[in-house]
Amino acid sequence: MQQFTKLSDVPNPQQLLKDAIDFKQDPRSQEQLGKGKTLVMLFFNPSLRTRLSTQRAALNLGMSVISMNATQGWNLEFEDNVVMNSDKAEHIREAAAVISQYADVIGIRTFASLSDREKDYRDFVLNTFIQYASVPVISLESAIRHPLQSLTDWLTIETTKKVARPKVVLTWAPHPKSLPQAVGNSFAEWMHFADVDLTIAHPPGYALAPEFMADANVSTDQKAAFENADYIYAKNWSAYGAYGQILPVQENWTITADKMALTNDAHFMHCLPVRRNVVVADAVIDGERSLVIEQAGNRLFAAQAVLGRLLG
Amino acid sequence: MQQFTKLSDVPNPQQLLKDAIDFKQDPRSQEQLGKGKTLVMLFFNPSLRTRLSTQRAALNLGMSVISMNATQGWNLEFEDNVVMNSDKAEHIREAAAVISQYADVIGIRTFASLSDREKDYRDFVLNTFIQYASVPVISLESAIRHPLQSLTDWLTIETTKKVARPKVVLTWAPHPKSLPQAVGNSFAEWMHFADVDLTIAHPPGYALAPEFMADANVSTDQKAAFENADYIYAKNWSAYGAYGQILPVQENWTITADKMALTNDAHFMHCLPVRRNVVVADAVIDGERSLVIEQAGNRLFAAQAVLGRLLG
Amino acid sequence: MQQFTKLSDVPNPQQLLKDAIDFKQDPRSQEQLGKGKTLVMLFFNPSLRTRLSTQRAALNLGMSVISMNATQGWNLEFEDNVVMNSDKAEHIREAAAVISQYADVIGIRTFASLSDREKDYRDFVLNTFIQYASVPVISLESAIRHPLQSLTDWLTIETTKKVARPKVVLTWAPHPKSLPQAVGNSFAEWMHFADVDLTIAHPPGYALAPEFMADANVSTDQKAAFENADYIYAKNWSAYGAYGQILPVQENWTITADKMALTNDAHFMHCLPVRRNVVVADAVIDGERSLVIEQAGNRLFAAQAVLGRLLG
Repeated sequence: MQQFTKLSDVPNPQQLLKDAIDFKQDPRSQEQLGKGKTLVMLFFNPSLRTRLSTQRAALNLGMSVISMNATQGWNLEFEDNVVMNSDKAEHIREAAAVISQYADVIGIRTFASLSDREKDYRDFVLNTFIQYASVPVISLESAIRHPLQSLTDWLTIETTKKVARPKVVLTWAPHPKSLPQAVGNSFAEWMHFADVDLTIAHPPGYALAPEFMADANVSTDQKAAFENADYIYAKNWSAYGAYGQILPVQENWTITADKMALTNDAHFMHCLPVRRNVVVADAVIDGERSLVIEQAGNRLFAAQAVLGRLLG
Repeated sequence: MQQFTKLSDVPNPQQLLKDAIDFKQDPRSQEQLGKGKTLVMLFFNPSLRTRLSTQRAALNLGMSVISMNATQGWNLEFEDNVVMNSDKAEHIREAAAVISQYADVIGIRTFASLSDREKDYRDFVLNTFIQYASVPVISLESAIRHPLQSLTDWLTIETTKKVARPKVVLTWAPHPKSLPQAVGNSFAEWMHFADVDLTIAHPPGYALAPEFMADANVSTDQKAAFENADYIYAKNWSAYGAYGQILPVQENWTITADKMALTNDAHFMHCLPVRRNVVVADAVIDGERSLVIEQAGNRLFAAQAVLGRLLG
Repeated sequence: MQQFTKLSDVPNPQQLLKDAIDFKQDPRSQEQLGKGKTLVMLFFNPSLRTRLSTQRAALNLGMSVISMNATQGWNLEFEDNVVMNSDKAEHIREAAAVISQYADVIGIRTFASLSDREKDYRDFVLNTFIQYASVPVISLESAIRHPLQSLTDWLTIETTKKVARPKVVLTWAPHPKSLPQAVGNSFAEWMHFADVDLTIAHPPGYALAPEFMADANVSTDQKAAFENADYIYAKNWSAYGAYGQILPVQENWTITADKMALTNDAHFMHCLPVRRNVVVADAVIDGERSLVIEQAGNRLFAAQAVLGRLLG
């Protein structure tokens, strides 16, 4: 595996899933694998869970970790043929090439602008960095995908499912801020590959990009979608069509106990952080079918699996 | 030991002191103890000495350390039954439970608000975090205590005292800003337990909370208190009664050479950082009876003793 | 070697260069040397390349690294006999003495004020820190020198030169901001020692301090200076005479392909970050004679050599 930014980077996703399951059983089983190797993590946007879990995952493999906030005082130029006489002090060409010499693996987090859809959907920052990097790059969430989260989600479903092909519902949920589509996109991408029956439920105007909707069942009726569901995966995202906007929504899309009662005793999942009583009611997230804490714990094993393959 | 936030968390304080003395003699004596273990340190407030010394202590035990500033961009909700539709992006329930899965020990620093005494004295942030955490928590200074500092101070006194039961004076000193009572509270708590003759000297209005004053000798006459003292421990704190306020003080409470001459050739102690010529005169802190640098060095061994017991 | 802040700190520069060459051939050859030792890096000013490369260098030697931003919330008093009742919370005397107890080596980055030349040229912050420190200090760039960069540059020239005594031209180049003289000063200092034919080219008013100009060939005619050059080392700096100022410059001093054509097929060098098409044209920095990426990679081996000698 040369990089980990999307599903199609993974030569054998089933093997990667199996690696993650193995690490979940024995996190220290490969503690010599990364000896003498260094993961450099660059955060163009803030991170808590991904930062901690990926760092701990690297430590579990015996790697060293250097973490850099690129949010302050490091204003990079990404465009070519520019006279750099304003506020950009370094070009991505030098930055990526130089950091590659200090790292064995580079992790990058960068969020969508939510203003320039075409640039976001080219995953401009991530892919420009990769273009000039000379070591494997792992996405710690990019403008349009969050593959470490998606591998985690798949691991969570595979290790809890009671039926061979569960019904999985990815449902939009409310949020006071305009959020990227990355988690939703990425979850859909991996669930299309996984052996699940995927439904995407969203209010009118909130369809994901066509490439991520693909051949999922689609519903704008949340309650109808919940029927017979084995997993409810809630996430807010801003509109893809009216790009980055928060559109008026008629119904209340918060995940409540009443709605969960329509399902096949479904598990509740969310990538966290979550706005309680906005995205999901306390009774659901605190209920015994909630997987959110175990799901967050699985981030460790997903990251170990990915780092292991990038090193191996 | 399940946690380290106050004296009463320690089953056997004398044993913990002995551990610290042992580490002072040989800091690398347990360098395999923490192998494969990770300390995650969360700073809700800034830290220099505690951050560096605790990190180095963990490294001396073979642990890895992940340090997180929680001061920016991570606005936690601590209240229950709240509709999280404003500025709080994550609830402490998830935050503490999730971080617990990435850490073997969690260190937390959080300061007093100095505005809500009831909440501060419940040690609201620290104790709410602990309520939802599933691994041992070590206080890196909380709203009302700084137990790593106090163990350090006890170690410093025990390894320098010339008499079996020294007279120890905790004296208030001036400062331009309103400071928490944590260091003073905690020092008093541990000195009540230690085999010392404790006097607390403070201007009128600056008594600590009754639970921390306990049965100490009390004086509002600084010079009288200094007589026959073997240790002068200086620290500013804001008022507990008129909570968080800076009250007018008639006398000059700065620790000067003249005042030190009243003592039994006492050692001078302070937790640092210290305002020179406000809290203490240059001649005192730079004098040969000053222990402030050795005291700061002892932070290492106190932290090693605590981490060792939490791991063991 | 007791410290590394300037050329004259190095007892045997040729041996240090040889160490760096050895590490370039085998970076992990001394991976036990720093076992149990900790490098504490204090950044009074921002750093990317130096932070990452020095940290990775320390890791390659088996050291642990603690990195501290001293830019926010840690306002140090450097003057003596001061009543510290305003915004400075800690004196350098305590800060340096305390941190020394938690570190085996301390790295410090501090930039020139560009307003007080006398203070900058005493390297006030660095030298005051060293005065009160009790472990070796390594400069990660100071007000007037950047010796890790200069050792790197020497290593780069020594491992690429085709003639015994190359002609090396240090040329001033344009920049929109007022920059310190540190890189230029330090490069000149080390090149005076190295076996090269040094020319310093700068517009009128941009001479470096006399101690750094020393006996270099000097030219205010950039094109004339480039003739027969084997290495072009470009760097902007603000004026030393009219201290810290950006003076009007008649000619265009940007390094272009046309100017490079005047040289003896010279290599192009720059310490990075670099403003493209301001300091240097794309065609030059992207050309096959550009050494900037290899040069940045050499930072690792220079830092390993220095850390190795400070530990040894």
